[in-house]
Amino acid sequence: MRIGIIGGGSIGLLFASKLAAVGAEVTIWTRTEEQAFVIAAEGIRLWDAEGGEHTIVAGGEWLSRERLAKMEAGRLERADWYLLALKQTDLSKETAELIAELIRRTPDRPPLLCIQNGTGHLGKLTAASAGDFSIYNAVTSSGAKREDMRSVRHTGQGSLFLARTPERSQGERRAERSEDDFRQKMLLNFLNRAGFDASLSNDIHNRVFQKLLINAVINPLTALYDMRNGELPAHPARRSLMKALHDETKPVLLAAGMKEWPDSWESVLGVCERTSCNVSSMLADVRAGKGTEIDSINGEIARMAAARGLSAPLNESMLRLVEALGKR
Amino acid sequence: MRIGIIGGGSIGLLFASKLAAVGAEVTIWTRTEEQAFVIAAEGIRLWDAEGGEHTIVAGGEWLSRERLAKMEAGRLERADWYLLALKQTDLSKETAELIAELIRRTPDRPPLLCIQNGTGHLGKLTAASAGDFSIYNAVTSSGAKREDMRSVRHTGQGSLFLARTPERSQGERRAERSEDDFRQKMLLNFLNRAGFDASLSNDIHNRVFQKLLINAVINPLTALYDMRNGELPAHPARRSLMKALHDETKPVLLAAGMKEWPDSWESVLGVCERTSCNVSSMLADVRAGKGTEIDSINGEIARMAAARGLSAPLNESMLRLVEALGKR
Repeated sequence: MRIGIIGGGSIGLLFASKLAAVGAEVTIWTRTEEQAFVIAAEGIRLWDAEGGEHTIVAGGEWLSRERLAKMEAGRLERADWYLLALKQTDLSKETAELIAELIRRTPDRPPLLCIQNGTGHLGKLTAASAGDFSIYNAVTSSGAKREDMRSVRHTGQGSLFLARTPERSQGERRAERSEDDFRQKMLLNFLNRAGFDASLSNDIHNRVFQKLLINAVINPLTALYDMRNGELPAHPARRSLMKALHDETKPVLLAAGMKEWPDSWESVLGVCERTSCNVSSMLADVRAGKGTEIDSINGEIARMAAARGLSAPLNESMLRLVEALGKR
Repeated sequence: MRIGIIGGGSIGLLFASKLAAVGAEVTIWTRTEEQAFVIAAEGIRLWDAEGGEHTIVAGGEWLSRERLAKMEAGRLERADWYLLALKQTDLSKETAELIAELIRRTPDRPPLLCIQNGTGHLGKLTAASAGDFSIYNAVTSSGAKREDMRSVRHTGQGSLFLARTPERSQGERRAERSEDDFRQKMLLNFLNRAGFDASLSNDIHNRVFQKLLINAVINPLTALYDMRNGELPAHPARRSLMKALHDETKPVLLAAGMKEWPDSWESVLGVCERTSCNVSSMLADVRAGKGTEIDSINGEIARMAAARGLSAPLNESMLRLVEALGKR
């Protein structure tokens, strides 16, 4: 099993190291030559959820138009899967086209598994693919924190659901090429052996919506208050804003197709509790002075609301405030 | 010198006690009969800025349509001035009309001095007065905290500027009735003896704008972060939001007529420093579960911006978030 992982951030390094540790041959495609070199030379350093330290061998390549142009078709190694671990923020139209080019030049055009938050990336990738390869959407609740170019800390066990997108009808599924079936099974097998609790889902859109609701509440407020997830609901003012943001977001997602979810508020609180010591990715980005996913999360919800004639002033407020936080 | 003070909140009790302490005859007009009774029976308790405790005699009345209806014209005592110490939030059209009725039924129809934040109250009061009495606008930086119905703590020394509104031309000022001049001088004399550092200003609108800019930055953010004024700029994320809110608000106020103010940002920081231990009135209201002045401050700025084709997304965000804070 050969897997190309696109993106050397926290999630990319986590999946690469865990999959390589159970025997997958992994190549990480990074943005910089420097990071690709460090990974290829020194391997990935992983602190597992129990704090144990491991060094894991992985390949490193860097993804740029110039680099791809220099590689002759024959030089690109076979891959069974690509896993896209870039943040939405880093997925411009140009990058989506570059990724499509990488897959087109890989023998057999393997499918691409996307584990981004939100839904904004699927349109860009579908356009760039032009039907030349399959796209799978996934949603994961695993947590990780990148410590340096080659080091990652596994901060939270989670699950992973995946499905081909657009979802196929039962008839189409029956007619699916057996090779695709085989690849799916292989990937699920490796993901599960690597500890990602992975399964196929015929409910992936709903799971994406559910994760979006949770992220829309926890991420911007942890960034605003500069607080770990668990501290957020401890103060009445913050809990009040969480509740207000939840109550504004839920009807927007229901209108966009999320299924009824009676205990959504308890789920938000449950995530804060289970990940109480975690620094949300949005807070980590603000602290590091990097761009955040605010536009892909609360911005996306504001746009969903506008498209449906609903109002989402608190989501818009979060968008403005987290944007302002970045401008120091 | 007889002064009717309308409103038994922190600012009303502060002005009443300090003016009475230097010999003015003060009556506080409260919303409830209960508070009027407690003040009339037990006096006002004042903790001065040095922590000394004083009990000061003052009259108490309560302002309601029924109460006014029961008072025959002759029973309303003479007053040289009314001082309006209600928050904007408490100044509905009905209340403005009730205040106008009170002044109309007071011998000689004394002038009304308004010390509200923002500018929204002047329109309502001018409409209710119908030209029957003079309205003065004032801006003060004194700070106070009400501890119970009759007790107030003086938390910050400040200054007070006042001017008749609408401001009169020099010709109109010359033609001013000598009685008005006399009343003005008397009031300034009492305010200064009471320690309010009061003066006439031909620049009152500008001072109102300046105070609005400072309040627009400090008040909502202290409410959001549940923090004393001095803690606000200590953290880079909060300081970053303060700066962004300042930078958005200033051009709106300049467009609305505020004069150039090169060191406005330093002034905002200076106020945080000088009032570092103060709980802003907005935070105090949120903590007490009461309505805040958010609509009269950031809401007003958002409306000023909209009327001038400018955008004020952060002021709108503050409006939404502080409103949401109240809904627990």
